[in-house]
Amino acid sequence: MKKIDVKECVSLLKEFDNYLILSHRNPDGDTLGSAFALKRALDLMGKKTMVRCIDEIHPKFSYLWDDIDNSDIEFDKIIAVDVADKKLLGEEFEEKYGDNVWLCIDHHMSNREYSENLLLEDRAAAAVVIYEVVCGLGVEITPKIANCIYTGLATDTGCFMFSNTTPTVHRIAAEVMEKGADYTLINRLMFETKSISYMKLEQMAIASIKTHFDGRCALMTITREMFSESGASSSECDGIAGIPRKIEGVQIGVTIRERHDGSYKVSLRTIEPYDASKICAVFGGGGHNRAAGCEFNCSLEEIESQLLKVIKAELK
Amino acid sequence: MKKIDVKECVSLLKEFDNYLILSHRNPDGDTLGSAFALKRALDLMGKKTMVRCIDEIHPKFSYLWDDIDNSDIEFDKIIAVDVADKKLLGEEFEEKYGDNVWLCIDHHMSNREYSENLLLEDRAAAAVVIYEVVCGLGVEITPKIANCIYTGLATDTGCFMFSNTTPTVHRIAAEVMEKGADYTLINRLMFETKSISYMKLEQMAIASIKTHFDGRCALMTITREMFSESGASSSECDGIAGIPRKIEGVQIGVTIRERHDGSYKVSLRTIEPYDASKICAVFGGGGHNRAAGCEFNCSLEEIESQLLKVIKAELK
Repeated sequence: MKKIDVKECVSLLKEFDNYLILSHRNPDGDTLGSAFALKRALDLMGKKTMVRCIDEIHPKFSYLWDDIDNSDIEFDKIIAVDVADKKLLGEEFEEKYGDNVWLCIDHHMSNREYSENLLLEDRAAAAVVIYEVVCGLGVEITPKIANCIYTGLATDTGCFMFSNTTPTVHRIAAEVMEKGADYTLINRLMFETKSISYMKLEQMAIASIKTHFDGRCALMTITREMFSESGASSSECDGIAGIPRKIEGVQIGVTIRERHDGSYKVSLRTIEPYDASKICAVFGGGGHNRAAGCEFNCSLEEIESQLLKVIKAELK
Repeated sequence: MKKIDVKECVSLLKEFDNYLILSHRNPDGDTLGSAFALKRALDLMGKKTMVRCIDEIHPKFSYLWDDIDNSDIEFDKIIAVDVADKKLLGEEFEEKYGDNVWLCIDHHMSNREYSENLLLEDRAAAAVVIYEVVCGLGVEITPKIANCIYTGLATDTGCFMFSNTTPTVHRIAAEVMEKGADYTLINRLMFETKSISYMKLEQMAIASIKTHFDGRCALMTITREMFSESGASSSECDGIAGIPRKIEGVQIGVTIRERHDGSYKVSLRTIEPYDASKICAVFGGGGHNRAAGCEFNCSLEEIESQLLKVIKAELK
């Protein structure tokens, strides 16, 4: 359990031949883009790798892997990418692999340091760290690797809109665009394509918004009924948690989403100086300053009342 | 009426002392960011300038000028920025200034070359051209100039999402971020703040969407009634024309917006290979490949039928 730098990570990766690369559950563009960028780089070095995720991956991400072999292999070591906590591998994967993760490559402040750890907290996306690792490995950035890196950069920064975006992110975006990243396609798939059913869900969710504390906090609720009524799937809902904070005057936006099993996932988005991860930590969650999450296993009323109490204190 | 390069433009700008800088009507972040970046640079050189636009400017843009003097001056020459056609100055300004524009700095393919013309059609935003001019003038990029440039870059590329985004745009974004551009504030104001009334308008507009040609074309209509019912103002509606194209499977998205005077503004958004500017040119309009516009002075039914005829042919 040692914090390592990019150079040490590169040396470690050269040591073995076959790797299992794990993404976090509810996979997003950063964990997937990072995992497949790393897989592609290691494969180009003659190694054998496979990327696995406990949850089904939305088909919109298929360009990340549709030209390569990702079938089962015997592996020497396990690498977790963009996975701050073994719990985030998902229950079954945590049991199966959690204690045997050999290397973690991540950028989350909330990282639990459960293995050899390349943790660069000031990077906006795990894909930035992976870009540095791939360059360190001396592998050429192919157009397909460029696609993977661009996907991680763009999705974790809300297409360069969130406050975590840095000059470095823009410069790597420029680099991978020149290396052939199909940014037009990727942006369209990630940010500009909504199914009619998702649009319906969005309208229902927007209609549910209630504001508190003179409009400084907005709370949006998405129930299982809304999912079934609209026909939308939860894998389409990556960006939906951003909506409440967009309302003029709102400083803390809260999205409460009911899961299949009746539990609730809460996502917070804030503007400076309000700390989303601090609020979520009260409920055992975590994340970044401006975007964080936590989970609840009680009634909606109870969740709202607990959250609003903590938010009220934060807004003071 | 001569096409000039950045160096010649820089020489021209050094010749006189006092300039009127004009933005196009329905001002957006690029025409305003470009105009105020140029004003700030020229003012730093000891010149006197004023920026004018025929239409009222949305207060969300006030950070572009709120610390400087933009009062009336006697001017030697007139510069138009991001104005492809004198008509786009607006009727009254076209009459008053149209024939006396001395220098135009622009990036639109559809530019009508009505003055000395620094026209760089491959630049994603007029702000890219202005950035090159300001560097050419030898003026330091102050944090406030950085704000103006960033605003133009970000708004004309949909926060680096549209296909006109280039590696150069990302690199200039990185540069101006390092020079102090408050990108967190700007992104929030430009892309992440919606009034409740605008959200209502958006919902009504989405409910109006009709699809044609097996879902390949979506048509959205925004009437004067929707504006008055929602309470939204047309100056909030910069991004609304992007909605219909976002629906899965839509290749050509059309937004028809009724103006105060009962005329209609049509905005097209397309994906490759469909040419929005070609379709709009049929109706006397223009713009870019992926985003263009035109105007109509007839009934909504007539507009729809004329547009759908041309779109049908383009989709074949």
